[in-house]
Amino acid sequence: MANFKGHALPGSFFLIVGLWWSVKYPLIYFHQKGKSSQLTHYHQRLEIIEAAIRTLFSVIGILAEQFVPDGPYFHLYHENQWVKLMNWQHSTMYLFFAVSGIVDMLTYLIAHVPLGVDRLVMAMAVFTEGFLFYYHVHNRPPLDQHIHSLLLCALFGGTFSIFLEVILRDNIVLQLFRTTLVILQGTWFWQIGFVLFPPFGAPEWDQKDEANIMFITMCFCWHYMAALCIVAINYSLVYCHLTRLKRCGGEIIGIQKLKSDHTYQTALLTGSDEE
Amino acid sequence: MANFKGHALPGSFFLIVGLWWSVKYPLIYFHQKGKSSQLTHYHQRLEIIEAAIRTLFSVIGILAEQFVPDGPYFHLYHENQWVKLMNWQHSTMYLFFAVSGIVDMLTYLIAHVPLGVDRLVMAMAVFTEGFLFYYHVHNRPPLDQHIHSLLLCALFGGTFSIFLEVILRDNIVLQLFRTTLVILQGTWFWQIGFVLFPPFGAPEWDQKDEANIMFITMCFCWHYMAALCIVAINYSLVYCHLTRLKRCGGEIIGIQKLKSDHTYQTALLTGSDEE
Amino acid sequence: MANFKGHALPGSFFLIVGLWWSVKYPLIYFHQKGKSSQLTHYHQRLEIIEAAIRTLFSVIGILAEQFVPDGPYFHLYHENQWVKLMNWQHSTMYLFFAVSGIVDMLTYLIAHVPLGVDRLVMAMAVFTEGFLFYYHVHNRPPLDQHIHSLLLCALFGGTFSIFLEVILRDNIVLQLFRTTLVILQGTWFWQIGFVLFPPFGAPEWDQKDEANIMFITMCFCWHYMAALCIVAINYSLVYCHLTRLKRCGGEIIGIQKLKSDHTYQTALLTGSDEE
Amino acid sequence: MANFKGHALPGSFFLIVGLWWSVKYPLIYFHQKGKSSQLTHYHQRLEIIEAAIRTLFSVIGILAEQFVPDGPYFHLYHENQWVKLMNWQHSTMYLFFAVSGIVDMLTYLIAHVPLGVDRLVMAMAVFTEGFLFYYHVHNRPPLDQHIHSLLLCALFGGTFSIFLEVILRDNIVLQLFRTTLVILQGTWFWQIGFVLFPPFGAPEWDQKDEANIMFITMCFCWHYMAALCIVAINYSLVYCHLTRLKRCGGEIIGIQKLKSDHTYQTALLTGSDEE
Repeated sequence: MANFKGHALPGSFFLIVGLWWSVKYPLIYFHQKGKSSQLTHYHQRLEIIEAAIRTLFSVIGILAEQFVPDGPYFHLYHENQWVKLMNWQHSTMYLFFAVSGIVDMLTYLIAHVPLGVDRLVMAMAVFTEGFLFYYHVHNRPPLDQHIHSLLLCALFGGTFSIFLEVILRDNIVLQLFRTTLVILQGTWFWQIGFVLFPPFGAPEWDQKDEANIMFITMCFCWHYMAALCIVAINYSLVYCHLTRLKRCGGEIIGIQKLKSDHTYQTALLTGSDEE
Repeated sequence: MANFKGHALPGSFFLIVGLWWSVKYPLIYFHQKGKSSQLTHYHQRLEIIEAAIRTLFSVIGILAEQFVPDGPYFHLYHENQWVKLMNWQHSTMYLFFAVSGIVDMLTYLIAHVPLGVDRLVMAMAVFTEGFLFYYHVHNRPPLDQHIHSLLLCALFGGTFSIFLEVILRDNIVLQLFRTTLVILQGTWFWQIGFVLFPPFGAPEWDQKDEANIMFITMCFCWHYMAALCIVAINYSLVYCHLTRLKRCGGEIIGIQKLKSDHTYQTALLTGSDEE
Repeated sequence: MANFKGHALPGSFFLIVGLWWSVKYPLIYFHQKGKSSQLTHYHQRLEIIEAAIRTLFSVIGILAEQFVPDGPYFHLYHENQWVKLMNWQHSTMYLFFAVSGIVDMLTYLIAHVPLGVDRLVMAMAVFTEGFLFYYHVHNRPPLDQHIHSLLLCALFGGTFSIFLEVILRDNIVLQLFRTTLVILQGTWFWQIGFVLFPPFGAPEWDQKDEANIMFITMCFCWHYMAALCIVAINYSLVYCHLTRLKRCGGEIIGIQKLKSDHTYQTALLTGSDEE
Repeated sequence: MANFKGHALPGSFFLIVGLWWSVKYPLIYFHQKGKSSQLTHYHQRLEIIEAAIRTLFSVIGILAEQFVPDGPYFHLYHENQWVKLMNWQHSTMYLFFAVSGIVDMLTYLIAHVPLGVDRLVMAMAVFTEGFLFYYHVHNRPPLDQHIHSLLLCALFGGTFSIFLEVILRDNIVLQLFRTTLVILQGTWFWQIGFVLFPPFGAPEWDQKDEANIMFITMCFCWHYMAALCIVAINYSLVYCHLTRLKRCGGEIIGIQKLKSDHTYQTALLTGSDEE
């Protein structure tokens, strides 16, 4: 879907996931510190619902790519020609995210799925997106090529970081890093839409101008800065909210920084429960 | 062996290994959880037999490459010319896999071989395959070059993952990841055969068509998706089969998910037996 | 600021940070071995002051880039043209370092910021610098391009090393490695200034001469060698100074090398306090 | 020194180091298992002597590069021209290895040098060699370029592996891997000598022939295979020799494979002494 909507829709999808994660992970992090065992069950249900929604989103994405007016309607090869390969490629990307969502659900639903498989499949979904994008943008104007290829940094960086979570599961720093990259992806899809298909009758961008490419490179960094700020703000809000809640309830979360925090982080590495 | 058979044979080899691993690793994983000490001996014999078969396959590969009708018959240099370097390169790939098989056998047979050496040599065998493929495909039609170079993703990804197993031995997620990559390689060899040397009188593919290259890129992702599904299905089948078996025998495998699973995974990292 | 000063100023900034770190990290390392608990508080204040100064430097950098006589004065787009994108890119680099400084401060000031976030943001700041430099140097003379691109080695190596510190926090070897890379960056900025904008009326360098490029490559290695030596010397000076100080005070730092050292290093990995 | 000797000499240097390591590391590995505390002191002296010899070799290398008949005699810039930059680059490589040797010595001589710094500097020495080689081979015939660039695989692979030893010190698998890469480098330097400067009046190689390049790629893999075999043979010889020695002395090395081996390997990771 090479138009504004075709970029705004996946952008919104990633943005919603990113914003949700920027609330979820701090929430779980602070709760796990307080160690209310009741939360574990609640946490599990939360993860299942989230994964289900992500799967749903991805399935909608697949159907949208297939059944837009000029879509392939699940025809792949017709009269000696491949039919709408662009839409098929986008469907493939969504398919991987759908499978990642399903595996996430299974991990929390069924006891015999080894932990870490969900992260592995998510890493492969992100890698596949980057892999398809990489071969996607040949033979296009320079700005189009550049603006898409910047995304590869976020995607391959994300693959590496998520793969690391297979080993270092529940590391809050890696989780927040992943969150910033998802938000970056979301806002960047919107940016691509605004640059390549200016809506509201805005003037076209000169796709061969060096200065435009230079600005877009810098703009990508600003988007990441914005993503960092969003995550930082949501993290603080969650903390303030929880502190107020606990104060009302008379409880105090025992946050013993410096040592305990460090122990927590590394306890995940060793699997011991010395905290 | 630049023909259909020359791709179908190694493809089948990798596919058989992949399918076998997709049964073996879940089997061992569930058994180790039940901790029946008797299995360890059985496990060891299994590994030795598997490694022996892999070595045998590789030796057959070497001999096939050398003694096909237009093979080099172990002549390397003749009348100021290199003889059939393509066959020699394939032989070299098989040689590394043969050595990897031998080292695997030795690791389980002889007590003084340090654990991890088998994974290291396997990683080097996979790397060598990728390394030779990388320099293999210059000066060929675009589609031929592209379809072979896609394999490099699987090979270098595999090298990284197997190398990681030197440190994180017996991590089920890494083992399953390796399994999916081997299956991917197997099915992809078959795909290469079908595309470059269409059997059964099928029409030739246009090796310069952009759309074909675009389809093949996407097709590679579908193959990986299929590999993921195969591994998932076999994993489930093994689990169901074991559960039924145990129920008949009156035993129950104690699977305490969430915590125990995590502890297990990380216990491997720390080497402690706190499980 | 494409002139001598524009390279000497950031060079001095990195050099000062590097020299300070080459004193700070050995100091903390030796003190932590002696385990005087009083230091922890002192250490914390030190880190906050350092981060504040780094933030200040970065803000000065941003303002300098914006308000130099031919700067953009915070105008980004004027009369259908991007205004002084070069200065904006430099401002962006400084902005990331400023944010990294602020996060460093927050980590030590506020108890609920998870440890490791400071390293993550620092890694992203270094990566952003490298990322912008990478797209910065197109369409320039070969020597100009080469001398800037050498910096990428230091920057991406630094990104990797600092990212590793998220997991392996307080590892003295990684800290010293980071220090050498910062010093390298500092001295190299000065070198770039001397080569591209020779001060004091020195003759211009031929920017297309192969021999100049070859020398500059080697020169980069010498700069790293110098950085290694500076860190080694400062490390020794700190040790000698501390030993003398302790001898006067009648105390002895118990340095039990070989085992204790190793335990210390790995204790960080496991988070246990077995030392 | 672009001649046969100029490649045979460093080749021999690396080969000697590699062969020595292929004896040393198994020796230390088996001894540490037997835990005779007396060895530690002997081990330390061994390391110091080895490092001293490596430093000596490197200094000889520097002097040889400077004082060969057509060398630069420590002149760098003369009459507006860089003097013999090739020799200077080689000297720089040797310089880094010399410094690596010195740091190795210091690590074992002086108690306050943190363990791991020796590996870091060694990794940087190997990286520097690769870095200089990378920019070294522009504007040369294809075969010359190719045969040198193959070395980069060994060098950057080695950098990664040695850097890993900063964290996973004394891991026998990583040590043996490093050993194979050093032997590979040694034999490959000899190969380069034989190909580019055929001694004993052998015929010249056609430096533009595709088949030659293809053969050389494969030949590189065979060299690695040979390196693997050499290390495996020396490992076995050391084991047999030690077993015979112990049997005569009435002692038995307690090698409890499978479990103990694994524990040992991972104990290094956690720093605990549970063995």
